[in-house]
Amino acid sequence: MTPFSLPAGWLAHPVRSPSALAQSQARAHQEQLTKPAGALGELEQLVIRLAGLQGRAQPCIDQCHISIFAADHGIAAAGVSAYPQAVTAQMVANFAAGGAAVSVLARLVGARFDVVNLGTLHRPDPDPRVLDRWLGPGTADFSQQAAMTVEQRDAALLAGAERLAQAQAAGCDLFVAGEMGIGNTSAATALGAVLLERDPEQLAGPGTGIDAQSLGRKVALIRQAIQLHGAGRPDVLEWLRCLGGFEIAAMVGAYLHAGQRGVPVLVDGFISTLAALLAVRLNPALAPWLLYGHCSAEPGHRLLLQALEARPLLALGMRLGEGSGAALALQVVRSACALHNEMATFAGAGVAGPGA
Amino acid sequence: MTPFSLPAGWLAHPVRSPSALAQSQARAHQEQLTKPAGALGELEQLVIRLAGLQGRAQPCIDQCHISIFAADHGIAAAGVSAYPQAVTAQMVANFAAGGAAVSVLARLVGARFDVVNLGTLHRPDPDPRVLDRWLGPGTADFSQQAAMTVEQRDAALLAGAERLAQAQAAGCDLFVAGEMGIGNTSAATALGAVLLERDPEQLAGPGTGIDAQSLGRKVALIRQAIQLHGAGRPDVLEWLRCLGGFEIAAMVGAYLHAGQRGVPVLVDGFISTLAALLAVRLNPALAPWLLYGHCSAEPGHRLLLQALEARPLLALGMRLGEGSGAALALQVVRSACALHNEMATFAGAGVAGPGA
Repeated sequence: MTPFSLPAGWLAHPVRSPSALAQSQARAHQEQLTKPAGALGELEQLVIRLAGLQGRAQPCIDQCHISIFAADHGIAAAGVSAYPQAVTAQMVANFAAGGAAVSVLARLVGARFDVVNLGTLHRPDPDPRVLDRWLGPGTADFSQQAAMTVEQRDAALLAGAERLAQAQAAGCDLFVAGEMGIGNTSAATALGAVLLERDPEQLAGPGTGIDAQSLGRKVALIRQAIQLHGAGRPDVLEWLRCLGGFEIAAMVGAYLHAGQRGVPVLVDGFISTLAALLAVRLNPALAPWLLYGHCSAEPGHRLLLQALEARPLLALGMRLGEGSGAALALQVVRSACALHNEMATFAGAGVAGPGA
Repeated sequence: MTPFSLPAGWLAHPVRSPSALAQSQARAHQEQLTKPAGALGELEQLVIRLAGLQGRAQPCIDQCHISIFAADHGIAAAGVSAYPQAVTAQMVANFAAGGAAVSVLARLVGARFDVVNLGTLHRPDPDPRVLDRWLGPGTADFSQQAAMTVEQRDAALLAGAERLAQAQAAGCDLFVAGEMGIGNTSAATALGAVLLERDPEQLAGPGTGIDAQSLGRKVALIRQAIQLHGAGRPDVLEWLRCLGGFEIAAMVGAYLHAGQRGVPVLVDGFISTLAALLAVRLNPALAPWLLYGHCSAEPGHRLLLQALEARPLLALGMRLGEGSGAALALQVVRSACALHNEMATFAGAGVAGPGA
């Protein structure tokens, strides 16, 4: 099988423009439905926007695809997580076996689901249920050196684009990227602090559940790393290389390629939204393609969402990642489509309109 | 067929106590699941609470029942709604035909669904798809006289209990009551103002979409009505008779009987929550049985939720009623159960716990 490839410079390729026609057709259809105008609140805006993205007045999300990108982080050895690094690989197996939260939700909503190993600490034995895109035994400790090589970063970006392309080829009305990587809230906090020009303390949270002392160490290491790598005046892609993770780079690649191929995305939590912000900084025209599933309990998430002017659908205090918040929100998006496509019109149902 | 009946004084019958054992078993099970403790946020509290209500460590909501209670309101003739009263009966037909928002959502989530006509302005021809519990041509204009007779109120309360009892007999893991009635935000605002001891202006909103002038008239009529009926120092049931609607009384009856029979309820928007507040004032022990689906855009809803110390699951700016917000939220409750029941445990999946 020929390995997936894209032309050099693909990251800078333009993204598609949503269809203004489909959007206005959907808006006009909404006004005919048997309900007071605006009574379905954000569901109305959501479906009108989705109509523009899918280029059809009656959008639908029958076929959803969830890809989970997993990788380890060198910074985890510095004690920034409540869990040992081995958990990343253990969770990869758990995703594949159907026992993780996002596996359960994918089943419940009938989404296609795959898991990509981009670089766990130990390269696992081949498993037909896991896509092997292993780039090394996790990233290097970013408080000491760049997390990735240029080759690793670019391969991770491409691996994300590959998942998106294959999801679209199989039919994909909506794409969700999830992530798993012990230590990756540290990487996301570091990158978020850089992009938002804030002190890491304003974004840092307990992640999987560390205590105040570990949180202090996490913030100090991130400050140190930003100072270390900032000396080279890095651009967004170089910051991603210095501080990021394989799974974060893969999500950036998947999101950018989703805009290029015209596939709407439902973004998950803190790490996913950080990847979305990186992708939008690389190409601001991507922004309309990204819908946001939920606001997580991780303190930095709200700041990232604000920077993206994003209004997430849910706010249930979740902080698990894995795409779990987006998988939950997917049911709201699907409901918005069903209402739009299946409700009767005033004329069709013989219901009088306002002021009649 | 023998008509449904309950012993006199049934409203005061005690409600069941949730099972503390099932709740603690569910809490212990949550701690074993492959995720950091608390990472599923409110979904964890939700499923633990539901375990207590259903009396089983693994709660589920496979079988849900949605009953829509419809009735007209005399106050509507005073121009407090953007829609003519005829819309109530037209929407009853639309519910039954499957074209209304809640009909679409009931289908999507696989809930059983029925529609009860408690008193539209004109008594419609028999329709096998609509339950006929017609109590009169809508309520009387509460700004001039009591909305209902004692007999109408008690029959409406009983009609709600009947739906709950029949839903349970058919198997019902969760009950949703929806409502339809042109003018019923006026009735709910009046009752809410009385129960919360606030000026109606603090609760009144645009309902289906009236302008500022009509809103002013709505508030003035409600103030006048509260003064008119307050002279008799009414208790909660008497206030319900003076200001309420048939569909509001039916929801009060359904909620109270749900607690008596041990069926958890998912409450919808402003009108439904007002009925919940009435029911809880009649029997405070009912409170644990009521879960709240969403916070609507109707201004008074937030105040009612605060009074009930309720945390609704969704906040999507919906203001349609019909049970639509609860039907949407039902998917969140179902997801919480699926996660609880289907996720792997740390031991089962071979995943290391925190600090391992």
